[in-house]
Amino acid sequence: MSRIAYVNGLYVPHAEAVVHVEDRGYQFADGVYEVCEVRGGHMVDERRHMERLVRSLNEIRIRLPMPLAALGVVLRETVRRNRVRNGFVYLQVTRGVARRDHYFPDPETPPSIVVTARAADPAKGEAVAAQGIAIITVPDNRWERVDIKTVGLLPNVLAKEAARQAGAREAWFVDRDGNVTEGGSTNAWIVTGDGKLVTRPAESGILRGITRTVIMEVAEKLQLRVEERAFTVKEALGAREAFVTSATNFATPVVRIDGQSIGDGKPGPVARALRENFHKVAEIAR
Amino acid sequence: MSRIAYVNGLYVPHAEAVVHVEDRGYQFADGVYEVCEVRGGHMVDERRHMERLVRSLNEIRIRLPMPLAALGVVLRETVRRNRVRNGFVYLQVTRGVARRDHYFPDPETPPSIVVTARAADPAKGEAVAAQGIAIITVPDNRWERVDIKTVGLLPNVLAKEAARQAGAREAWFVDRDGNVTEGGSTNAWIVTGDGKLVTRPAESGILRGITRTVIMEVAEKLQLRVEERAFTVKEALGAREAFVTSATNFATPVVRIDGQSIGDGKPGPVARALRENFHKVAEIAR
Repeated sequence: MSRIAYVNGLYVPHAEAVVHVEDRGYQFADGVYEVCEVRGGHMVDERRHMERLVRSLNEIRIRLPMPLAALGVVLRETVRRNRVRNGFVYLQVTRGVARRDHYFPDPETPPSIVVTARAADPAKGEAVAAQGIAIITVPDNRWERVDIKTVGLLPNVLAKEAARQAGAREAWFVDRDGNVTEGGSTNAWIVTGDGKLVTRPAESGILRGITRTVIMEVAEKLQLRVEERAFTVKEALGAREAFVTSATNFATPVVRIDGQSIGDGKPGPVARALRENFHKVAEIAR
Repeated sequence: MSRIAYVNGLYVPHAEAVVHVEDRGYQFADGVYEVCEVRGGHMVDERRHMERLVRSLNEIRIRLPMPLAALGVVLRETVRRNRVRNGFVYLQVTRGVARRDHYFPDPETPPSIVVTARAADPAKGEAVAAQGIAIITVPDNRWERVDIKTVGLLPNVLAKEAARQAGAREAWFVDRDGNVTEGGSTNAWIVTGDGKLVTRPAESGILRGITRTVIMEVAEKLQLRVEERAFTVKEALGAREAFVTSATNFATPVVRIDGQSIGDGKPGPVARALRENFHKVAEIAR
């Protein structure tokens, strides 16, 4: 089946989904995005993703290009036209097209919207999670406003590619103090010797992951304690378990960090339980 | 006259100059760029801009999409087709189009190339320089690899827009130690009480500006001393002169920083002399 993309008001064949070369997303990374899981044909945690989109747009003063209800219709229609049952929907909003100039363009410039959707085989993700993933650590060299979900992802691209070159799947950024901030496209977690879940506070140096928030609710249901605090690479290496969370990973166990086994080197029971229970807690609007 | 852009092998009308929504430049800021002055129909300092392009591409491991000689032909042809006598040519190279995934795509993926050119009235730049510009200072919140000329320019966009909101034209980034790094799209300079030119070393926290390099040669011809070292906002406020350099600004006097006059509040003689002599030193290949 051929894919369909929504671009600035039109549903077009994927191959013809184009934006102008002077779209500010292309020349300045002047835009934000969201990725939302699709499960059984429905979006997961749409409300929270839309709330975060609005926050990102506000932080860099791009106006919401259409009411949220209309945007929801576009997202659902893109999912439907691509016949995605399980997969992801991607939404990007930029400051629109204008003659290249760093300053914001005329406020009447319409923001650009692109929405794509694609199917993903859940069995593949399950196979990865069943094995557990290896990660590497890299210095966090990103800008200070990583709380905004911008398309300025080159540092993340370079970190994740470095991970792949090292035979790993994800890279954890480490700040000047030796503390893990987050992964290239995931939030980072460990489970301490006494069974506490630890993840960095969303107030400092990370993106407030939607899945991260939902996993906290899952943890509560499972009567697990969560501690929001910084942790070092050293503490992670000695942790009972480690895992990553994101809309595309749910909770995925980490079994190796910088070549060293975590726990017994196999996916841990806490990460597995969080993963198994994730969709019982995540919001699916039908 | 209608503008023409070069996009991935074709010269197309500007309005039809488009790239795919999954171009990695659009989704990841995974690309680099150069802006070159055009003067009397010829490119200024083309050789140095091409050398820096190659360095930027190497640093993020994007391959040069065509030999430099061929790229030079494209640049010149774009200038010619747009009949630009005085203005600028813009070149952007990204890692190409691939299904969205942070990891580098298949190495066979061809990089994308976009070249645009436009005329600019030299009289306007002269009028701005004759007045001198106001700047503001903002905390440097950018990533660590600002030595690479990537399209990840959102921090620069926000800084320059903040400047405009404050009635200024440029923003100088200030590092944690209180030292000026560089401007949103320019390098930063001061002239000390004893007539020395001071600008931050290119090894740390700034882009190695082509115009910055040429200005050093101009200074040498004018028998001015240049000191490459960090300087604070406080030192700048007490400086005899201040100015900015870039391919679009040459040397442009700064007359106000954060609302305070620099020197006598008028463009200084050193900045003016550097500007006047710039094109005697810059390389113009005819």
